[in-house]
Amino acid sequence: MALRAGDHSQAAMNGLKEKVLTLDTMNPCVKRVEYAVRGPIVLRALELEQELRQGVKKPFTEVIRANIGDAHAMGQKPITFLRQVLALCVHPDLLNSPDFPEDAKRRAESILKSCGGHSLGAYSVSSGIQLIREDVARYIQGRDGGIPADPNNIFLSTGASDAIVTVLKLLVAGEGRTRTGVLIPIPQYPLYSAALAELNVVQVDYYLDEERTWALDVAELRRALLKAREHCCPRALCIINPGNPTGQVQTRECIEAVIRFAFEERLFLMADEVYQDNVYAEGSQFHSFKKVLMEMGPPYAVQQELASFHSVSKGYMGECGFRGGYVEVVNLDAAVQQQMQKLMSVRLCPPLPGQVLLHTVVSPPAPSDPSFTQFQAERRAVLAELAAKAKLTEQVFNEAPGIHCNPVQGAMYSFPRIELPPRAVQRAQELGVAPDMFFCLSLLEETGICVVPGSGFGQREGTYHFRMTILPAVEKLRPLLEKLSQFHAKFTREYS
Amino acid sequence: MALRAGDHSQAAMNGLKEKVLTLDTMNPCVKRVEYAVRGPIVLRALELEQELRQGVKKPFTEVIRANIGDAHAMGQKPITFLRQVLALCVHPDLLNSPDFPEDAKRRAESILKSCGGHSLGAYSVSSGIQLIREDVARYIQGRDGGIPADPNNIFLSTGASDAIVTVLKLLVAGEGRTRTGVLIPIPQYPLYSAALAELNVVQVDYYLDEERTWALDVAELRRALLKAREHCCPRALCIINPGNPTGQVQTRECIEAVIRFAFEERLFLMADEVYQDNVYAEGSQFHSFKKVLMEMGPPYAVQQELASFHSVSKGYMGECGFRGGYVEVVNLDAAVQQQMQKLMSVRLCPPLPGQVLLHTVVSPPAPSDPSFTQFQAERRAVLAELAAKAKLTEQVFNEAPGIHCNPVQGAMYSFPRIELPPRAVQRAQELGVAPDMFFCLSLLEETGICVVPGSGFGQREGTYHFRMTILPAVEKLRPLLEKLSQFHAKFTREYS
Repeated sequence: MALRAGDHSQAAMNGLKEKVLTLDTMNPCVKRVEYAVRGPIVLRALELEQELRQGVKKPFTEVIRANIGDAHAMGQKPITFLRQVLALCVHPDLLNSPDFPEDAKRRAESILKSCGGHSLGAYSVSSGIQLIREDVARYIQGRDGGIPADPNNIFLSTGASDAIVTVLKLLVAGEGRTRTGVLIPIPQYPLYSAALAELNVVQVDYYLDEERTWALDVAELRRALLKAREHCCPRALCIINPGNPTGQVQTRECIEAVIRFAFEERLFLMADEVYQDNVYAEGSQFHSFKKVLMEMGPPYAVQQELASFHSVSKGYMGECGFRGGYVEVVNLDAAVQQQMQKLMSVRLCPPLPGQVLLHTVVSPPAPSDPSFTQFQAERRAVLAELAAKAKLTEQVFNEAPGIHCNPVQGAMYSFPRIELPPRAVQRAQELGVAPDMFFCLSLLEETGICVVPGSGFGQREGTYHFRMTILPAVEKLRPLLEKLSQFHAKFTREYS
Repeated sequence: MALRAGDHSQAAMNGLKEKVLTLDTMNPCVKRVEYAVRGPIVLRALELEQELRQGVKKPFTEVIRANIGDAHAMGQKPITFLRQVLALCVHPDLLNSPDFPEDAKRRAESILKSCGGHSLGAYSVSSGIQLIREDVARYIQGRDGGIPADPNNIFLSTGASDAIVTVLKLLVAGEGRTRTGVLIPIPQYPLYSAALAELNVVQVDYYLDEERTWALDVAELRRALLKAREHCCPRALCIINPGNPTGQVQTRECIEAVIRFAFEERLFLMADEVYQDNVYAEGSQFHSFKKVLMEMGPPYAVQQELASFHSVSKGYMGECGFRGGYVEVVNLDAAVQQQMQKLMSVRLCPPLPGQVLLHTVVSPPAPSDPSFTQFQAERRAVLAELAAKAKLTEQVFNEAPGIHCNPVQGAMYSFPRIELPPRAVQRAQELGVAPDMFFCLSLLEETGICVVPGSGFGQREGTYHFRMTILPAVEKLRPLLEKLSQFHAKFTREYS
């Protein structure tokens, strides 16, 4: 251990040294990462909240965070059954309490039996508790009209984001023209662009067709693919259905066409289906990629590689804070699947409370269970309110001149196009910000409404949008939408 | 959406296509990842458990998982206060229950007030709930004799692993001779080698001195550094204190010397201090790198970059399944710290239940609180038992010929050196496995005891070790240690 005297004195006398880690020496891929949903506009919203608390006068009394799909933060109450089961698992003394229904207790007991030492404090196997993976498989099978799901193909995760990044990691390879490219929709949920930037994978944009309710067109996929092949090696295609931020629900025909395209072009399919319970529009229905793929039969059903993602953060439960989710892989090469398992094992296991909530979501109370009636009532109330808010949002925005809002068929967001006067665009350019960022920042400063500019999700050049959640309580939502529309009108006048 | 007929028929007729993702085309860095703690030996243990359940006859009746630091799985009971606070947060109806102490209720109420919508189901800010980061700062300040900690330098995480990987990610840069290298101890906790492999960073080994209770020697650090500089750019130095798998507790002098070395050589310091509450040996004491760094004064205290990691998975609480932890960064470049914050925001937030447990760990009941007496009794009982088991392990192993075990001064593992007869080494080579893997697999097959071979952690060539946790219940541990020692004697005879 002995250090010779004088070894370090020279260094110590030299005065200030440069840091090891600076913007110039840090990971350049990390520097390229952007994540608009929690970007500069949200940091400004935080500051404004602090200023309000300190008594600074503002033209509004509260900041409304319509930037992120965080249902509980907007006042949605947890589903009682979910929390009862989890509380029992966390503190098993409660199993003796008369205040908990028998079915919740049975659930908690069976989960605890599957845990090391009968405690949520033990690690689970890295892919998640076996019992819960079996529940997920049964859920998928039920959802997909009896098409079987194999618990060994299901990996629980720390929210869907974790699973998405894990699958993307497997795909990283090559350099220069052989570097992996991944096709993602534009507009997209910025987890994708952020993860691709971090992993140094080429982002290949395909555009959704705003004029046709953000439809996905195979001709556009092909255009994007052929162009990308000039400079990289596209190997995967990401689909978000129902769409985030765009809210469209894909038709069965569309999904079939996408699967055929992926099969022909040898693309690994990644289906982000975290909003599968959030479908509101009449005539819209959720079709899982897994079901459509299997129903298409061979060669698709037996060869096309697919990963499908789900989460406890959205749906009717909105339990974002628990970070629970899963991925089901289909037709994955067995050796690659082993590698995926190994990779996940390095992080030990997904958080157990999220696994427990996932269990309750994929196997909710049955009609004969004591908790059934309350559970159904709570679930239906949330979904009915979301449907009403989706409709209201579309309505109010489309009454406003210069705002064009596609139907919110599913998910939790509207993504209206806004007209911005040339002088506003010019002013934004002078300030060095995107024009819709300029609009959203102005909106925030003047009204306290926090929405995310379309430039954070991607959009056709020269068009401007913002993403706003439909989550604010229904009595708040109408005035909010009207306030926003009025602000847009005022902003337009100001810069005309 | 229309797909021209015939577009895909050709492809569909071609019959079997190669998968997009195969071992040949997948991420080569992921392929290189190894994680012994959950590696082949653990997969075999799982199989054996299944065989036992199916009634297959074995020379043992249960598999004993001494491979991983998972206290609850080995029968340790959760600390009551921790689980009470968490249950109240999960299911706030319980705030009306007379069965919970007032101080647990107060805690839960203050945490819920800091959550969006007063629910654990809301996302927190990406660095974790502000209130809890303030608690962590106060805890650090108390631990470090009043040296202040800034909540803005504290980032909560999904277990310590998550935070460690995040910091390593920042350091990735360069190619060829400028590629980042990171110094890690050998033996090491294999999260480090796994993360470096995945990130394509050069692993630079420095050896701990087994003859001097796994001491860290600056001369050895220098040797490793100079050699590494011939082929890469070493930029960070990882220290695990108390040691995993080696159980040593570093002296204050050693830590000072390491800090001077890092400062001179411009290395970013990463201090893995997750076992800071697990110090058992008389005369051993935990010194945090932060405290020593600050007490060394300028230039070290104001310039040396340091990240220190902690977790709720170890200590007296052992709450691994909740995946809670934090990193404190010191002297980080402000712009880099912003980049780190941004990177973390992509994963939204660490799981809230882990954040809650961290809160209770860093601010346990005060002497005047109703829960104090029980909390203290439970905490002390766990730590006293661990200390006894550390002592017992060292004793029993050192009585066995051919097994040499350093004192388990801290952490949760023994890492004894075992002599293996040349014929056993030769037999292992014939089978294509490391000799200590051969020993551990034979041990598992014959006794049901699951320990991890030293080759999974790294060791000096020609030496053989295994890591075994000290966690089995005390009444089980002695027979277990004796059984293992006897097996080693038998194995040695067999191959002599």
